[in-house]
Amino acid sequence: MKLASLKGGRDGRLVVVSRDLTRAALAGEIAPTLQAALDNWAETAPLLRSLAERVEAETTTTFRFRERDCASPLPRAYQWADGSAYVNHVRLVRKARGAEMPDSFLTDPLIYQGGSDAFLGPRDPIPLHDPADGLDLEGEVAVITDDVPLGVTPQAARRHIVLVMLVNDITLRERVPGELAKGFGFFQSKPSSAFSPVAVTPDELGSAWDGARLSLPLHVAINGAPLGHPDAGADMTFDFADLIAHAARTRPLSAGAIIGSGTVSNRGADGGPGLPVTQGGLGYSCIAEQRTVEKLLGGEARTPFLKPGDTIRIEMVDKDRHPIFGAIEQRVVPVV
Amino acid sequence: MKLASLKGGRDGRLVVVSRDLTRAALAGEIAPTLQAALDNWAETAPLLRSLAERVEAETTTTFRFRERDCASPLPRAYQWADGSAYVNHVRLVRKARGAEMPDSFLTDPLIYQGGSDAFLGPRDPIPLHDPADGLDLEGEVAVITDDVPLGVTPQAARRHIVLVMLVNDITLRERVPGELAKGFGFFQSKPSSAFSPVAVTPDELGSAWDGARLSLPLHVAINGAPLGHPDAGADMTFDFADLIAHAARTRPLSAGAIIGSGTVSNRGADGGPGLPVTQGGLGYSCIAEQRTVEKLLGGEARTPFLKPGDTIRIEMVDKDRHPIFGAIEQRVVPVV
Repeated sequence: MKLASLKGGRDGRLVVVSRDLTRAALAGEIAPTLQAALDNWAETAPLLRSLAERVEAETTTTFRFRERDCASPLPRAYQWADGSAYVNHVRLVRKARGAEMPDSFLTDPLIYQGGSDAFLGPRDPIPLHDPADGLDLEGEVAVITDDVPLGVTPQAARRHIVLVMLVNDITLRERVPGELAKGFGFFQSKPSSAFSPVAVTPDELGSAWDGARLSLPLHVAINGAPLGHPDAGADMTFDFADLIAHAARTRPLSAGAIIGSGTVSNRGADGGPGLPVTQGGLGYSCIAEQRTVEKLLGGEARTPFLKPGDTIRIEMVDKDRHPIFGAIEQRVVPVV
Repeated sequence: MKLASLKGGRDGRLVVVSRDLTRAALAGEIAPTLQAALDNWAETAPLLRSLAERVEAETTTTFRFRERDCASPLPRAYQWADGSAYVNHVRLVRKARGAEMPDSFLTDPLIYQGGSDAFLGPRDPIPLHDPADGLDLEGEVAVITDDVPLGVTPQAARRHIVLVMLVNDITLRERVPGELAKGFGFFQSKPSSAFSPVAVTPDELGSAWDGARLSLPLHVAINGAPLGHPDAGADMTFDFADLIAHAARTRPLSAGAIIGSGTVSNRGADGGPGLPVTQGGLGYSCIAEQRTVEKLLGGEARTPFLKPGDTIRIEMVDKDRHPIFGAIEQRVVPVV
């Protein structure tokens, strides 16, 4: 089934969305919000699934579903832990900062604690205070879990993945080096993230979902031009089961925890960093990677970071080219 | 007024507690949970205040208040950002790791994004998987805010502080160096924190509260022996207004955001790190500091980190020696 939160109140109003994303039904009689549904998932999931069947069969009242009416599926969450599972991304952005990647990054997952109290909606503008901050997008996949016990194994973690969605993990590149040097991780360099209009249960993904990773291209564009379409299932050094087990190593995760994949990033056919789309490559899910490769290939980074008026788009389609999650589509606006 | 959350459900049941912490009244008719009250604070605060007056005047039905029945005031929260405002602490724990403190730490606040989906209650046991992790307590003060706009100034931030409480920011010391070296901040090294039974509005603190810092000793003990009683108002390089402004620099904070002070830590009279309680000093709010000073004074750290069976206690009393927030009192238990 596919779920979304229409804008309204702090936590939105839960709706069940048709598979083709054209119609929806209010789910308020089952649970007023997605968080409320997740808090009691064993009981609400079957009821939501039954409503989803009626939406597909057109045997219940529905209304036109519009992605622009959506908040993020969880407009605020209790836990947002973002991995960095595509080591190719880590290697490239560190190279851009002149930093080597330690070998341990291949065996010990990187994950940072994100702020989760005020997510942007999938069509909300991205506020930019200072263009010198180096505003970048990061296209990612994320999962939502039910209650995950402390010390869960990767194998057992798979069972706790209840929903899948996309993320724009907005990053202020120029604030990253200073914050990471302080050792306490990202804070100001990671403003509010935005998520896809729709979150889906893993069964909606068919054979593209192996229980812990999603093997489909992620389409990322800036101002209508493709930035990349790397495969989210390729070069993922740590899958979602690994990331959940790492996050739950010394504490439990509560229902509604969001775990992100990190920026989707594929190596090139030669094992190198991969080529830009304009040179026939799969491209990138963030500007920082493209800039690093431009520097490696031609001596200087040419693609600028985002500025007011720019638009970004992140989406994923199934093998019949139908959108799965709806699109994250955001415009950068200046904040005075 | 003083507020608490009795255990029950994921978010507890909101109660108004008498000033002397002996009696309480259910506040469910005003708001079922503290988060619900904070979501609508302008309307709920006057009603809660009126109920608090009736509790003091004994003109409403009350019941015996027991700290052991409490969850943390917010059993789970959307935002938990913990500063490190007492630079003396930072200097000491870095010294223990052989790391110098950069001068910028005196002007640029340190703050890390904490995990907030599953806090421990004030009397809940602290689960310990591996004694080699170096389990430590950290005694801190924290504030809860209402909605804070992006880019708030320190001066304006003061108005957004609605409640004050204490924290035990539990830390696994031996996991810290590896995580900080990875650059992404704390994750496994910071398991679930615990908060004091009661959160109070700033007016309950009288002249000890200057609008952004709390000038009273924090009493921290291990197995009944005092570890320290440093003054939370002294040597606080950044006050809560500074910390909130730093946290809200590139994103807003939502109602119910918790901002921590970091481990309360005072310098000695000579400007040095300060002496242990057993040597007539004010002592420390965490074991790591005491170990560092032991090493400086006698060549080796003698105080062990916490092990199963140990108990810790964190509390603060007013000038008449009455407890303000109730006590955080936790026992370390092994997890099999």
